[in-house]
Amino acid sequence: MDAGRVISDLRELAELTGGPDGARRVCWTDGWVRARELVRSKLEELPVEIETDAAGNVWADLPGEEEGFVIVGSHVDSVPAGGWLDGALGIFAALEVLRAHAGGERRVGLRFVDWADEEGARFGRSLFGSSACAGTLEADEVRDLEDRDGERLEDVVARHGVDLGRAHESGTRLTGARAYLELHIEQGPVLESRGESAAAVLGTVGVERRAAVFRGRAAHAGATPMDMRQDSFLAAARAALLIREVGLAHEGGYCTTGGASSEPGVVTAVAGRTELLLDQRHLDAGELAAMLREADDACERAAEEFGCTVDMKHLWSIPPIPFDERLIGFAKEALGSDTAIPSGPLHDAAEMARLIPTVMIFSSSSPPVSHTPEEDTPEDDLRVAIEAYGRTVDVALAAAAGGELPPRP
Amino acid sequence: MDAGRVISDLRELAELTGGPDGARRVCWTDGWVRARELVRSKLEELPVEIETDAAGNVWADLPGEEEGFVIVGSHVDSVPAGGWLDGALGIFAALEVLRAHAGGERRVGLRFVDWADEEGARFGRSLFGSSACAGTLEADEVRDLEDRDGERLEDVVARHGVDLGRAHESGTRLTGARAYLELHIEQGPVLESRGESAAAVLGTVGVERRAAVFRGRAAHAGATPMDMRQDSFLAAARAALLIREVGLAHEGGYCTTGGASSEPGVVTAVAGRTELLLDQRHLDAGELAAMLREADDACERAAEEFGCTVDMKHLWSIPPIPFDERLIGFAKEALGSDTAIPSGPLHDAAEMARLIPTVMIFSSSSPPVSHTPEEDTPEDDLRVAIEAYGRTVDVALAAAAGGELPPRP
Repeated sequence: MDAGRVISDLRELAELTGGPDGARRVCWTDGWVRARELVRSKLEELPVEIETDAAGNVWADLPGEEEGFVIVGSHVDSVPAGGWLDGALGIFAALEVLRAHAGGERRVGLRFVDWADEEGARFGRSLFGSSACAGTLEADEVRDLEDRDGERLEDVVARHGVDLGRAHESGTRLTGARAYLELHIEQGPVLESRGESAAAVLGTVGVERRAAVFRGRAAHAGATPMDMRQDSFLAAARAALLIREVGLAHEGGYCTTGGASSEPGVVTAVAGRTELLLDQRHLDAGELAAMLREADDACERAAEEFGCTVDMKHLWSIPPIPFDERLIGFAKEALGSDTAIPSGPLHDAAEMARLIPTVMIFSSSSPPVSHTPEEDTPEDDLRVAIEAYGRTVDVALAAAAGGELPPRP
Repeated sequence: MDAGRVISDLRELAELTGGPDGARRVCWTDGWVRARELVRSKLEELPVEIETDAAGNVWADLPGEEEGFVIVGSHVDSVPAGGWLDGALGIFAALEVLRAHAGGERRVGLRFVDWADEEGARFGRSLFGSSACAGTLEADEVRDLEDRDGERLEDVVARHGVDLGRAHESGTRLTGARAYLELHIEQGPVLESRGESAAAVLGTVGVERRAAVFRGRAAHAGATPMDMRQDSFLAAARAALLIREVGLAHEGGYCTTGGASSEPGVVTAVAGRTELLLDQRHLDAGELAAMLREADDACERAAEEFGCTVDMKHLWSIPPIPFDERLIGFAKEALGSDTAIPSGPLHDAAEMARLIPTVMIFSSSSPPVSHTPEEDTPEDDLRVAIEAYGRTVDVALAAAAGGELPPRP
């Protein structure tokens, strides 16, 4: 693995589709098409067969002597004004893995993938290509999603050669898959705060997203004495503070109240109705369920304190998806570090982990921000992460050749 | 005073410009014009001179033998989907005062007024007509206010005969004014909770409106451990709860946090910036100033607790405007009750109180809601309030005839 070449590829992509305002590679746009053309031009220098599947994912095959293959990849699409590494790091590291193995013979093959629309930045549905491949994308649920110009997802993907009704046929690409390995930037402060360059990832956390709807009584701010109010905003405020305690009480738990909207929501009125956004995450399903119950209880207590009622409205949830323990071990060994952290953000790897042994490696985020042009990993940390990724793939290939990691039927 | 006739006039107005969806008399609209036509038709049955002044206020004069006059009135405009009594009660009670005195001779005259655009529902500037009359309306500050269709205030009022640049000429109507008396629905729960039908009003409270802007650090809800956050929404939540304590600690104080808006304000992110709406009111200027300082302090402490900063942004303020002690005494006597409460909402009476002895009487609100079709005063309470208002005007007229309440030069 030549980490320097990966970094220079990344800089070339940033030159082409980035700039001071950040990455401009939103999926199903011209910037994304240009980014893919650059990746394709580099793949074409290798002895690989390049194909785009029914869901718009690009695959490049480096076959081996034996049945099956190890998958390496990530996504080249970005959010608007995104960072230079989110997705792209994994793409060019995977490309470098192909380069490193393209010269000789291989017992077990390698298959590169560039997933379509990981970010969901245009239509609000993330993991489009990988979920189509994993069989979890429901065409009817996304068909009529509209971008802000009112264009429908189905029509837009069709212009990029994707027949939404057949996107699930992408799944055939997994026949023979033995493992999936992805390198990605952390998008958070954990590695930076521990002074680590990179680490193995334990899996993606389970997520429970809800809105807590507090109902009190709207009232005139100047005509209603303090002790005669049923203030839904204060109930939501108390709940948010209690829910933070829930997060702090569960190690590895995340509880976030990202905001609240009130009605009438004006400076001259006590809020009669306040909807509090609530996101809870944990890698352990039991802990997540406990956090959920404790948040319910916190909302009930807060509502009662202020003479309000509360209803919990389910928005979205996904269970924790743990990665493969053997592959996590390979990654730790390659990194020379026992550090392994959960991923709060979702990744295409979560879709793959449903079906095949999967692991990710994170490079540090410094500054620890995400989805902004300031996103970065120090170059020394990038090298550590890229080289460890290459070694982890090698160990996985060797294990597969040795009869472990059987090919998916 | 025939309270039954006032109530039947009110029902006639509700029939004409109300209905199940509430009052439809937003100022500078057809519904408002229809309401005024009804009022005018009833004024025309009396021996009064009716004029519309430079600010769109309608006056009706019942002159007396001596110099000067007592003003009775309110506003016939409403918010959209408003209540049947807000404003209209004072208009028809004032009309009934004219009727009661129209038969004979009077030592001191009576002057009826229907103020234009008390509510400010279309352009967001309340007390338009009364502030023009009192000389506190700055034409340049309201000229370019737009309604939601983009129409400018200056153009719209011009279609109703008001030349904005000359609106202040309305002020000449106060030459000779000896007192101003207005009957209004309370718009709050205080009288209902005390079991009182009506009460004298002490004055309008001082108001301080601000936004507390908390700045922390936006972060991914799943990638940022709980103990590494600078959560601006939690800072705002803590501040709101502390500010409530400030309101409870000052008797007669009101502290309201009607809502908060966060950025990015999505379920998947810790809020980097949260703006908390803050409204504080008190009838006593010293208490209001103390509440303001204590709210500042609460915001600072809350910001510090969550690693944020806070800036206080001034939105609007008005000092407390006390009503006339002698007139308050007249009203209490007429009501046979020592109860006197401050008004949280502003009223045209506050503009008058800057210049001439002023008092209001409130009828109870039951249910204790405001600016909704459900607004109401039980009919028995209405009669008590209307009759006491009539008696208070009589006592003021007698006092004026006896040499008290001198005419404004």
